[in-house]
Amino acid sequence: MTRNPLLNLLEKFNALDKEIYLMKCIAALLNWDTTVNMPIKASIQRAEQESLISVRIHELSTSRKLVNLLKRLSQKKFYRKLSDTDRARVDLYNHLLKKTLKVPKKYVEEYSKAASLSHQMWEESRKKESYETFASYLKKIFELKKQEAKYISPKTHPYNIFLDEFERDITMNEIDAVFDGLKQELITLLKKIRNSPNYMSINKKRLAGFGSFPAGAQLEICDDISRRIIVDTGRFSSAESTHPFMVSLGADDLRITTAVRSDPFFSFSSTAHEAGHALYESNFDTKIRGTILVSDSIISFAMHESQSRLWEKIICQSKYFWKGYYPYYSSIFLQLKKVRLEDFYKMINLVEPSLVRIEADELTYSLHIIIRYEIERGVLDGTIKFCDIEKTWNKKYAEYLGVTPSKPTEGVLQDSHWASGLIGYFPTYTLGSIYAVMLYNQMKKENPQLEQDIEKLDFTFIRNWLKEHIHKYGASKTTKELIRNACGKDLDVKEYVEYLKNKYYAIYGIRD
Amino acid sequence: MTRNPLLNLLEKFNALDKEIYLMKCIAALLNWDTTVNMPIKASIQRAEQESLISVRIHELSTSRKLVNLLKRLSQKKFYRKLSDTDRARVDLYNHLLKKTLKVPKKYVEEYSKAASLSHQMWEESRKKESYETFASYLKKIFELKKQEAKYISPKTHPYNIFLDEFERDITMNEIDAVFDGLKQELITLLKKIRNSPNYMSINKKRLAGFGSFPAGAQLEICDDISRRIIVDTGRFSSAESTHPFMVSLGADDLRITTAVRSDPFFSFSSTAHEAGHALYESNFDTKIRGTILVSDSIISFAMHESQSRLWEKIICQSKYFWKGYYPYYSSIFLQLKKVRLEDFYKMINLVEPSLVRIEADELTYSLHIIIRYEIERGVLDGTIKFCDIEKTWNKKYAEYLGVTPSKPTEGVLQDSHWASGLIGYFPTYTLGSIYAVMLYNQMKKENPQLEQDIEKLDFTFIRNWLKEHIHKYGASKTTKELIRNACGKDLDVKEYVEYLKNKYYAIYGIRD
Repeated sequence: MTRNPLLNLLEKFNALDKEIYLMKCIAALLNWDTTVNMPIKASIQRAEQESLISVRIHELSTSRKLVNLLKRLSQKKFYRKLSDTDRARVDLYNHLLKKTLKVPKKYVEEYSKAASLSHQMWEESRKKESYETFASYLKKIFELKKQEAKYISPKTHPYNIFLDEFERDITMNEIDAVFDGLKQELITLLKKIRNSPNYMSINKKRLAGFGSFPAGAQLEICDDISRRIIVDTGRFSSAESTHPFMVSLGADDLRITTAVRSDPFFSFSSTAHEAGHALYESNFDTKIRGTILVSDSIISFAMHESQSRLWEKIICQSKYFWKGYYPYYSSIFLQLKKVRLEDFYKMINLVEPSLVRIEADELTYSLHIIIRYEIERGVLDGTIKFCDIEKTWNKKYAEYLGVTPSKPTEGVLQDSHWASGLIGYFPTYTLGSIYAVMLYNQMKKENPQLEQDIEKLDFTFIRNWLKEHIHKYGASKTTKELIRNACGKDLDVKEYVEYLKNKYYAIYGIRD
Repeated sequence: MTRNPLLNLLEKFNALDKEIYLMKCIAALLNWDTTVNMPIKASIQRAEQESLISVRIHELSTSRKLVNLLKRLSQKKFYRKLSDTDRARVDLYNHLLKKTLKVPKKYVEEYSKAASLSHQMWEESRKKESYETFASYLKKIFELKKQEAKYISPKTHPYNIFLDEFERDITMNEIDAVFDGLKQELITLLKKIRNSPNYMSINKKRLAGFGSFPAGAQLEICDDISRRIIVDTGRFSSAESTHPFMVSLGADDLRITTAVRSDPFFSFSSTAHEAGHALYESNFDTKIRGTILVSDSIISFAMHESQSRLWEKIICQSKYFWKGYYPYYSSIFLQLKKVRLEDFYKMINLVEPSLVRIEADELTYSLHIIIRYEIERGVLDGTIKFCDIEKTWNKKYAEYLGVTPSKPTEGVLQDSHWASGLIGYFPTYTLGSIYAVMLYNQMKKENPQLEQDIEKLDFTFIRNWLKEHIHKYGASKTTKELIRNACGKDLDVKEYVEYLKNKYYAIYGIRD
């Protein structure tokens, strides 16, 4: 009895795909544990453990065995018989391998050392508040990344090659088209808000000014909101860390962290944000679980960000949500019993130009992103000189936001992305915000009761809709396909601008 | 320029040894995380991750590459040039491989499935309080283990082969000699205590009866005692779990857990126990770190247990310790202000025959162990029929301890060891207790101030002495070598009996 050769191939391919996936889960656990539990002196041996696993993942993902399996599965006689998801998996591996196999091993080693050193120097330079000590390391990273782009495709703009790591579905030109318009709109909008007659009086009141918000109570609320978003409590756990994050160790093991600050809204909104990421990861279709189609480095970064922003900003900072949630919230923080819901809503939605991206409000956030995008793109194509990065940074902040850093950690040293070689990552934040609004609008169209649902804290429709239209697919469809299928159109920045105008005109009493 | 071929071989051997070690650390992290952080529904995918890592460890430890390296390093021309520790590493790998290579892969798979199923059935049967439903699975385990012993060495008593997994340095006959005498002594001692005129009045008072001992306060004390034992706080962390345990993820990453119960002495003494294990793991010499000589499945289990027992029982349950510690302890639990130190000391050292090993007192504990040892040895050599296990268990409990289980979870179903195939493990508990007393007596000989030191809570001498005589060697010396070097003699059960007599005669006011 001869066995079906396609089944044979698929069996081997599935086993290898699963092994790579499981190794990535283990890498994610090492990462989570480093931040949440690891004793401080263990960092060197942890780095050895992490490196061992990444070497193993790299070995498996570039193995002769995988290359051969892909070659055979890509033969027409087999390929045409593959299911949609199997085809997507084969395509994805082929796409990744095409790049990886072009990059010499020697380069990978050199780059990995440079990136680790540069990240270390970034931390050092932050302590010293000195961009100078970091600049040469950053330059090396940019140069190496340019070199990498040349290996992969000498004729393509390097930015498009880097974008592909995070967002396989969009080009620099498309981003330019979106960001140029958005920038102008945001600058105008910001001016209008700052010139509005109520600006001073509204922005004077801060939540952190209303007495103390004990850690235990903050964490109780975080627990509540994450349970409301994720529901299936047997599949996630939470902890504290300096910088909140979400990590998936598999569809049934989702971890989110938060940080307690004096302003209690930080822990609340970061939890809603990370729970949004976790919900996405929890909803992948059973048939793609444990495959490359759910690997967190493969899922569209913008789509992932759209899920966290949707919950954090659009739902959990809306007036509908707070109508429903404020009674509970102010029963935990009793001092808020005297604060009117309307005033509370404004306090959590203040617009104010600022220097630090991760503390920026919903409206100005994209300006922070656009500045970074313009700089990284400019450095890569030579329109911005490397030595002018800090100058350009400060100039753009003054121009777009009207603020100027007083020290590098408030300016060019604030993010770790470039230090770690993550060039082409930033745009995904703003793309995510735009997708989030589009998805929300579409849900509202399909369910006219959406806002009443939110007010009742009933997220059943939202969860089901997101699962059905976005989550379940993982990376088996591209972002463009998902958005087109879900919303019937492509990326539409106008919806985003409209959303911001509606929300913030109302808050600041602006008439157009 | 030709390179020194020995250096070449050693470099490759070191890299492979390190890789195996790091993989074991990762396996340990998976295990820690499963107990401490993992969401409940993630257990299936966690099992997949764990299995992947153990397969990898097995692949590496039995690889052609390793076999060839060992073959060459064992050649006289190289072997005689090896350092003591390198020689110990080569010997150890050869010893392990000799066994592993004899066991067919098919058997390993069958056994692994049977053990996992049997462990599952053990849990099921506990819920049902039915030994019958478990018996056939346990029988399979015993049969498979017998089969394994035949593969490895058909002429050796299987018990000696299993012992070797936990204690490479002792035989069944030696254990028989120790346990037979000890059993009689303990039974006599127990009778004397139970017949002592103060027995009833002393055993009436229980710590748990003195009001409430809040979790936060218990954990504060656990934190205090673990810091006093381990000192270097940058190298360990602690958490809660149902069953306390210690795990090393590397010499700089030691994790201990405890559990809060209504009797606050449980969390205290389990923490002292686990901290003793952790201190051992923290003190390995730099030159053997990251090698097989510090692997936790290689270190003598009895020696490891001696370290935890030394701190838990001999130091932290002694009257010297409590003279120093009681002021702090009773400043946390204020209700104890009214309890005299002498009464407190008796309450934490009550002797009472009981059914459950892990809740047994210091004195009767070894009787629980001896019962298990006699049964597993008897089943293997046929002097106890498999179908008589439960009957024999209950008979021995009645005979040695005077108690009879009212349900299987109080009897033969209480431990998971046999269910998981750990046959030959139990004796290491009692051997550890004996070694602990020997080490303590030796320290007292070398430092006549030892008890005053303990009263001052100054453990400097103890820590240094243990590091110098035991800890730093890891598995580069055998247990016999370590004990002979440290104490100038071999295993001496009389010291242990003497220790128990001195302590418990005093508590129960018995004159010999």
